[in-house]
Amino acid sequence: MPNDAENSPWTKPVTEALRAGPDTRVADIDTDATPGFEGDKELGTRLLEERGTYLSQLQEKLFANGRSGDRRSVLLILQGMDTAGKGGMVRHVIGHVDPQGVDHASFGVPTPEELRHHYLWRINKALPRAGQIGVFDRSHYEDVLVVRVHDLVPERVWSARYDEINQFEREIVDNGTTIVKVAMFISLDEQKKRLAERLERPDKYWKYNPSDVSERALWPAYQEAYQAMLDKTNTEHAPWYVIPANRKWYSRVAVGELMIDALERFRLDWPAAMFDVEVEKKRLALS
Amino acid sequence: MPNDAENSPWTKPVTEALRAGPDTRVADIDTDATPGFEGDKELGTRLLEERGTYLSQLQEKLFANGRSGDRRSVLLILQGMDTAGKGGMVRHVIGHVDPQGVDHASFGVPTPEELRHHYLWRINKALPRAGQIGVFDRSHYEDVLVVRVHDLVPERVWSARYDEINQFEREIVDNGTTIVKVAMFISLDEQKKRLAERLERPDKYWKYNPSDVSERALWPAYQEAYQAMLDKTNTEHAPWYVIPANRKWYSRVAVGELMIDALERFRLDWPAAMFDVEVEKKRLALS
Repeated sequence: MPNDAENSPWTKPVTEALRAGPDTRVADIDTDATPGFEGDKELGTRLLEERGTYLSQLQEKLFANGRSGDRRSVLLILQGMDTAGKGGMVRHVIGHVDPQGVDHASFGVPTPEELRHHYLWRINKALPRAGQIGVFDRSHYEDVLVVRVHDLVPERVWSARYDEINQFEREIVDNGTTIVKVAMFISLDEQKKRLAERLERPDKYWKYNPSDVSERALWPAYQEAYQAMLDKTNTEHAPWYVIPANRKWYSRVAVGELMIDALERFRLDWPAAMFDVEVEKKRLALS
Repeated sequence: MPNDAENSPWTKPVTEALRAGPDTRVADIDTDATPGFEGDKELGTRLLEERGTYLSQLQEKLFANGRSGDRRSVLLILQGMDTAGKGGMVRHVIGHVDPQGVDHASFGVPTPEELRHHYLWRINKALPRAGQIGVFDRSHYEDVLVVRVHDLVPERVWSARYDEINQFEREIVDNGTTIVKVAMFISLDEQKKRLAERLERPDKYWKYNPSDVSERALWPAYQEAYQAMLDKTNTEHAPWYVIPANRKWYSRVAVGELMIDALERFRLDWPAAMFDVEVEKKRLALS
């Protein structure tokens, strides 16, 4: 159901509480904070279940409209350092909606084939279809993050990408897709705790990669790259939301609200019948 | 959790209760039946929730192994007449697992591009990746069902497809994919009821298509085509399961069990660490 503003633990709209601005400083983000939310883990977790059901209802309407010629869709872009909780976000937030309505893509190290193409080639192929919720676990932003930190291409190449990305996203938005860009921030300490857990639990070994530790030494360079990304690609048509992610329950309930907000803005109704209902009732009765 | 055989409402393994055999007669299927299940809708619905959680746990292990080099996957193929409940199956059964682990594809009327290729071209492109659960809502079987009923290609063409499909599925299975083929059967009356509901409820109009009524006149031809499909493609490597589907709760809990069975047969364990855990703990501590 829609939010009951009276009893909501949100003290301000989540889009306002989390929207990146010109003053956003990555180094100053309080990764433990729960901006705009007055409540604890128990409340947040319970709320996510309720709101997940509502998200699923909105998604079904989006899907129905997509089947009826409406071109609109939503694309959730998740960025964050290793262990920031991108996978858990998909499982616990997007997991509430019908799998038929989700176009999920995860962007790892590019394959040799992908490297032979422009960096937006694989992104373009994975954009959500009309009526779908697209989810990108990492994205074209890797091409100005890991690529910049590791000097994988010359500076003149990556530095041109910010404008190119803004232009690319402009076209996507003009085509009817609402883009929800989520940057998840954890602290260096929290990352250490999460990596340690992966090394303690044999059911988590598969999530651990020795290179994750090597990357920790580059934390300041990543912070700088994230700062540049926010500074240069926080557009009106595709704004960034900054999510403190040390508390998983908070980041999930917050992103759930961002998705609900995006879908509510479509003001979706069930599509009108594209046939004469009374005629069809008669045809069916005779069949 | 795994089934507690003592308290299970299943009187025999679902794979046994539902497996198509040489004597299966489509015209004789009791579409109201609940083979192998002793219990009512309430019990079935409750059980599906419990078993969905277990399915999700098994899926995570499959995914973890897929990330660690294991080539195996599961492919659920759903076939059935309009309104048989294929979409609901995806939502209510596959909806229990992490969307990241699902490769879903729905096969409608072929696009002009698809028609310029061999009929297995689009199928091949949509096969599940290693570690994934693939779901086909309709499939290459349309090429011996609707295509046969409507004479969309000459008989010599469609009649050669059964062997071709068996061979194609043989290759998929040899590559590590378990194929779970589910044919859902409703009665002509039940279909009328479900179509009528779509015409009564404005939130269901979008699911209604006038051609669904025209197709009802061809019911006997479809029954014949389904019979031939079961007769000719019910192989040891990719057997058919026949699901009476008038009771949605039954068809869902039954297919949930088929998926659990397929995953349990892999006898999956968490993948071993591909690194030295103690060395990594030290590296992490110093990072």
